[in-house]
This record gives sequence, structure tokens and C-alpha cells, in this order.
Amino acid sequence: MNWDYLQPVKIRFGKGRVSEVKDLAKEMGIKNGLLVADPFFFTNGLAERIVKESEGAIIASFGDLSPNPDVTEVDACAAIIREKEIGFVVALGGGSSMDCAKAAASIALTDDSIRKYHGTGVAMPQEHLPLIAVPTTAGTGSEVTCVSVLTDHANGKKSPIVSDGFFPSYAIIDPELTYTMPPKVTAGTGIDVLSHALEGFWSKGHQPICDACALHAAELVFQYLYKAYLDPADEEAREKMCEASLIAGLAFTLPKTTSSHACSFPLTNIHHIPHGEACGMTLDYFARINAKGADGARIDEFARKLGFKDTEEMADAIHELKAKMGLRNDLKDLHLTEEQISELVRISRHPNLYNNPVEITDEMLSEMYHKLA
Amino acid sequence: MNWDYLQPVKIRFGKGRVSEVKDLAKEMGIKNGLLVADPFFFTNGLAERIVKESEGAIIASFGDLSPNPDVTEVDACAAIIREKEIGFVVALGGGSSMDCAKAAASIALTDDSIRKYHGTGVAMPQEHLPLIAVPTTAGTGSEVTCVSVLTDHANGKKSPIVSDGFFPSYAIIDPELTYTMPPKVTAGTGIDVLSHALEGFWSKGHQPICDACALHAAELVFQYLYKAYLDPADEEAREKMCEASLIAGLAFTLPKTTSSHACSFPLTNIHHIPHGEACGMTLDYFARINAKGADGARIDEFARKLGFKDTEEMADAIHELKAKMGLRNDLKDLHLTEEQISELVRISRHPNLYNNPVEITDEMLSEMYHKLA
Ligand SMILES: NC(=O)c1ccc[n+]([C@@H]2O[C@H](COP(=O)([O-])OP(=O)(O)OC[C@H]3O[C@@H](n4cnc5c(N)ncnc54)[C@H](O)[C@@H]3O)[C@@H](O)[C@H]2O)c1
Ligand SMILES: NC(=O)c1ccc[n+]([C@@H]2O[C@H](COP(=O)([O-])OP(=O)(O)OC[C@H]3O[C@@H](n4cnc5c(N)ncnc54)[C@H](O)[C@@H]3O)[C@@H](O)[C@H]2O)c1
Ligand SMILES: [Zn+2]
Ligand SMILES: [Zn+2]
Repeated sequence: MNWDYLQPVKIRFGKGRVSEVKDLAKEMGIKNGLLVADPFFFTNGLAERIVKESEGAIIASFGDLSPNPDVTEVDACAAIIREKEIGFVVALGGGSSMDCAKAAASIALTDDSIRKYHGTGVAMPQEHLPLIAVPTTAGTGSEVTCVSVLTDHANGKKSPIVSDGFFPSYAIIDPELTYTMPPKVTAGTGIDVLSHALEGFWSKGHQPICDACALHAAELVFQYLYKAYLDPADEEAREKMCEASLIAGLAFTLPKTTSSHACSFPLTNIHHIPHGEACGMTLDYFARINAKGADGARIDEFARKLGFKDTEEMADAIHELKAKMGLRNDLKDLHLTEEQISELVRISRHPNLYNNPVEITDEMLSEMYHKLA
Repeated sequence: MNWDYLQPVKIRFGKGRVSEVKDLAKEMGIKNGLLVADPFFFTNGLAERIVKESEGAIIASFGDLSPNPDVTEVDACAAIIREKEIGFVVALGGGSSMDCAKAAASIALTDDSIRKYHGTGVAMPQEHLPLIAVPTTAGTGSEVTCVSVLTDHANGKKSPIVSDGFFPSYAIIDPELTYTMPPKVTAGTGIDVLSHALEGFWSKGHQPICDACALHAAELVFQYLYKAYLDPADEEAREKMCEASLIAGLAFTLPKTTSSHACSFPLTNIHHIPHGEACGMTLDYFARINAKGADGARIDEFARKLGFKDTEEMADAIHELKAKMGLRNDLKDLHLTEEQISELVRISRHPNLYNNPVEITDEMLSEMYHKLA
């Protein structure tokens, strides 16, 4: 089996380490930083603190971004980078903030709109500004991935862009930043972690280092996610979920995600289900399907290493975990019409679907959505 | 828990991929390559083939090196690099060849002898020539580590030097290159892999990503080493041992090794026991000691994940595996005098010993060596 591996991000993990942003800014020796931050951190003082602590290294901030960031937000951020002659970018927030910053830090060095690269297959330019990624959810792992997931709401299109230039220079993972996540966000982003671990392992592009990471991350989710959900102040659970999120990022960034992420895009885009909840919706379903395919032995072994009898038992546990945390296990509340189900089937046929170890036909998608509806 | 992670090596794994050396040489766009290769590969034609395939990118080769390379060999290699104005280095061989090349590619940009940095604590210069590392043993993992282990035979000193500049630019792991290893070398280098995995996990500097890698690598060793030993042509076993060696390299390069590697240095240096066999000599002994320490639960859990009841059972399996492969489990054939035992105790007090989770006193070392003697 042939495989390539690359993981250029310098990782710093630990409570309180957000304070090292200023040190890295100095270490890089670059001036004119821009802080791209989730709006939440402009309300709780952290954005202000980071800018202040940087002692002039960070000269501006940008917070006009929303969950599932829009291509227009990326373009607006890039415009500021050009205008203020920004030299490096600090991204503070969940996947949405980091993904917006990653894309903006790349296209700002061109005259392009990000639309040129979004869902078009046009390769991103290699040059980009150095980025320090500071996640505040335990979810996407975007701090170590070469992926930026963007949405073109005007065209109803959500899609990841992949580029080696998207790897941040540094990732600072400070578990304390996640303490303020409400339980609903903890639950959804946590199930996203599990999706990354499982799908990275299932993917046709799976490879050994990522497999080892997938197992480590999945084990932590089963052990700690529900604890973090129940008690947002459980420091151990928060730290372990940050570790899981980061290491699941390592697990999927090269192999890429598969069926559940493919199906999540229309669920989020059309039906406004948050990313993690949307991925989790079909995770147990595809687990069962993949265990019956040609890679079944490999997939069952993963479940056994997690302490389950087999994949069926793991899928039951995923289903139950979602239910306990108030995440949806079906789409009944949407009262989907036949036309809407057909639309879900059609838009789920996303490139990531082809990474799934079992071929997923339209008939299978249709059957699945009918069961969920 | 705070931890940092860095893994800048671009990895390419797969049968036949040694042929990509020429592509990387072109991709780097640097002229005047030097091939540093184990003498064996000048006898079997591979060194010649690599130079030829490079179509002029590699202009010279160096093969004057021996197992546990001497500081004078590094200096000689560096002299050639300076003289021929070498632009990049390709290292082909086991840990000995790679470590010599790593050190030479760094000091060649200075006027220094490597002696200035060997066991002195003087920090290596940051600048270094790009290196492509191509391992031919499944052992050291040096292709992904920031370590170069050198020996000053004149002064009886064996010691690792650590420097971020030692990370190769690329690692090409081609399992086919290991097919020619004789069973004795397979056995010793394979036990080295297990030592790296276990010691990386035990180390006071342990951290999650490396832990995940350690488990993955150790599992492969227990599954495939004996197969590769019995049948050098077992392609699956050879490939899995290469995977194990590489991933164990990831597991220990940041946490560093502990007691067994510390004790291996005098065993190799004074008593000429090959590196892997020397590490393996004390591995089950320290496993039992560490399981009884403060980190015992963590260490036992590792053994259980490998399918053992506890660390005792794992240590028994290590002992048996060594015996089955004709590796020594004691030092009786050396007929050690009391003075020689005292010397072993004294020289085992190497910095790596302080990474061990249980404090190892001279009394413990003395007791251990007396039992082995
Ligand atoms: N780049 C990647 O590798 C990758 C991987 C998976 C998903 N994604 C994408 O990332 C996005 C989802 O990111 P996410 O799940 O991290 O959520 P998010 O960034 O969209 O944030 C979700 C909500 O939580 C809030 N929030 C974030 N951190 C908080 C905190 N510490 N305290 C209080 N509130 C907080 C935000 O304000 C927001 O309202 C989606 O667009 C998804 O497609 C990217
Ligand atoms: N840098 C690191 O991270 C690191 C880690 C552990 C050990 N080491 C060091 O590496 C050295 C040991 O390296 P090693 O165990 O890989 O052995 P080695 O490089 O010393 O080689 C051992 C013997 O095997 C032969 N050989 C190598 N590959 C062969 C092949 N494919 N076919 C036939 N013969 C082959 C060599 O000619 C030599 O005689 C020691 O000095 C040890 O301290 C370094
Ligand atoms: Zn996701
Ligand atoms: Zn070793």
C-alpha cells in the first residue's frame, strides 16, 4: 500500500496557552497582524485581550463572519488584508472562523474572489500569509487541516476547498477557550469529531498514521463527550475533547471524509442543521453499511478496539449518545416532501461520497432519507 | 497537560518508491546531490542505480561509514560536502547511515567538527542542507526523527544529539529495501522498534499524538516481527515492520527514549552488542519496573490494549520473542567482572535515564546487571 504523509503545523496544546499568541507573533518576526475572530469573542473581551497583549503586533481585527461562512465574508476579510497590508493572520473561533481566515489569507495575495476556487476545481495559489489558528470549539480540527469549508449561500452551494497552503503555521489549542460553549454546541461539534475519526478511518484514502490517530480520537469521544455535555465546567472532559478534536483533524485531513460529511452539506445548507449534528445524523447508518462491505473486517476491528462487540454495537452507541445529548436522530420535524427528499439525494452526491469504502447509490441514499423522514 | 508537537518530514511510503528519489531531487530544484550510503548498497548495485537515475542531480557518493558511526566519519563526510559544494544529501541505509548524513549535512555549513556538539550540550546550528532519508532497516525511525546518534570511539562515548535541523525534508520508506536484511539484523532492529514505541510511551515527556503512534507501532511489532524474522521474503511482514519502524519514530522523537536506550549505550560501546539487541536486553526488565510505579495504570492499559492481561504478561512475551529470534536475554557470555558491572552502572547514567517514569537508582542498575551477568 502506497501513502504519503505531511503534517507541517506546529502544535501547542495546553490550558492558558492562548497567551502565547503574542510570543508566536514576535517569534515569526512579522508585523501587521490581523485577528479574525468569531463575534462571540468580541463580546467576552478575549479578542480585545489578544490584540492588547500583542503589543502592536496585531493591528486590526475582523469579526463579520457567521457559522458556515459565506464566500462574500471571505472576500471582505481578504479586502481588509490587502488594504491594511496585513503580514499574518490569527484565527480565533470554531471551524467557521478558522476556515474564513484560511481562505482569506490565501486569496488576499491575489486579486481573485474566493468564488474562483469554490467548487470549481481550480487549484488554490500556493502563496499565503502565515496563520496562527486558535480553535474555540472541540470539533472541526481545522487548526491542523488543509481544508476550508465555505458556503455560497446565493448559489446554495457548500463545499470544502483543499490546499496545502491552508495548513496553519501554528495551532494553539487552549482547552479553556471551549468552556463557554453551550451544551448544544458541545454536542454537535463533539459528534463532528467522531465523524472525522470514523470517516478518516473508513475513507478509501485511509493510511496508517491517520488510522492510529482515528482510533485515539474516537476512544476519547466515547469516553468524554457526554461528560463535557453534562458539565461544561468539567476541565478534564473539555481537555480530552480538545485533544480528540485535534487528533481527529490529523486523522481525516489527508484521507478526507466520506459519506456522512457528503450528506451533511445539503442538510446544513438547505435545512440549517448545524454541521456536527448534520454529520452525526447519518453516522450510525453508514457505519452499519460500511461494516457489511469489503472492508468490513477492518471496520469491525476498529469497533472492537473501542470496546464494542462489533460495528452494530458501536452504531447503537452513537445513536444513543446523540439522543442523550438532544441531537436529532431523524428529520421528522422537517416534514419533508418527496421533492425535498429527491433534492437531498441529488445534493448528497458530493465528491466526498466517492471516498466511502462501500459504493453509495442514489437508491441507498433515497432509502436512508425516507427512513429518516 | 501542556505539550508541543512538530513533524515537518514529508513522508512517502510504499514498495518501489525508492525510484522517487530522483523526482524529489528534481522537485527540490537543487543541484549537486551527495548520496551517503551503507557499504552494503555499493555491493548490490542500488547506490549506483540511484545515482544513475538521478540524471546528474546526484554528483558524488560516500560510503565510508560503519555501524554506530564514529564522529570522524561524520567529519569526513562533511569535508566532502564542503569540497564538492554539495546542495542536498540523500541518506540510504540503516540508522547508522542516516545519522551520519544528518550530522554531516548540518556541520558542513560551518567549519566545525561534530565533536563540538557531541555530548557537550552545545546547540547545533539551525542551518543545514536538505536531506532525503531512505531507511533500509525496519528499526531506528531515524528518517522522521530529530536525533543523530554518534559514537566517539576514541573517547568511548556514544550519545544522541538532538536538533530540529536533523528532521529530514523527505523520508522515502520502501519496504523492498529491507528484504535483504539477514534474520539477525531483522530481529535486532525490530526489537529497537518496540523499544522506541514503549519508551516513547513511558517517557516523562509522553504526549497524546505520540501515544497513539506508540500503540499502533507496538501492536505491529508483536504481530509481524517474528514473521519477518522467519521468512525474510514475507512481503506483508516486511511492509508492516517498516510501517511500525516509521510510526515508532514518530512516537519517540519528541518524548525521547528512556532507561533501555540509556543502558544500551555502554552495552554497544564497550561490549559491541548491536543497538537493537542492546536496547531489547533490558526492555522487559524496565517494563516490569515501570508498571509498578506511579504511572502503572497508564502502562498496564497500554499492555491491555495490545491484548495482554497486564504488563507482566507483555514483558514475558518480549522475553520470549527475543529468545525465539536468537537475541540474547542475558550477558552471561561476557563473563563480566565486578569492575565491568560497575562500569556499566556508571555509564548507564545517561541523560535518557532521567526520562524514565520511575527513578532508576544505581542500586537498581547494579541489581539488574548482576541478574543479567
Ligand atoms: N476546515 C475543516 O477541516 C473543517 C472540518 C469540519 C467542519 N468544518 C466547517 O467548520 C464549520 C463549523 O465549525 P464549528 O463546528 O467549530 O462551529 P462554528 O465555528 O460555526 O461555531 C458554532 C457556534 O458556536 C459559537 N462558538 C464557537 N466557539 C464558542 C465558544 N468557545 N464559546 C461560545 N460560543 C462559541 C459560534 O459563535 C457559533 O455560533 C462548518 O462550516 C463546517 O463545515 C471545517
Ligand atoms: N537517529 C535516531 O533516531 C536513532 C534511533 C535509534 C537508533 N539509532 C542509531 O542507529 C544505529 C543503528 O541503526 P540500524 O539498527 O538501522 O543498523 P545499522 O544502520 O547500523 O546497520 C546494521 C547492519 O545492517 C546492514 N544493513 C542495513 N540495511 C541492510 C539491508 N537492507 N540489507 C542488508 N544489510 C543491511 C548494515 O550494513 C550494517 O552492517 C545505531 O547507531 C543507533 O544508536 C538512531
Ligand atoms: Zn466536520
Ligand atoms: Zn533505538
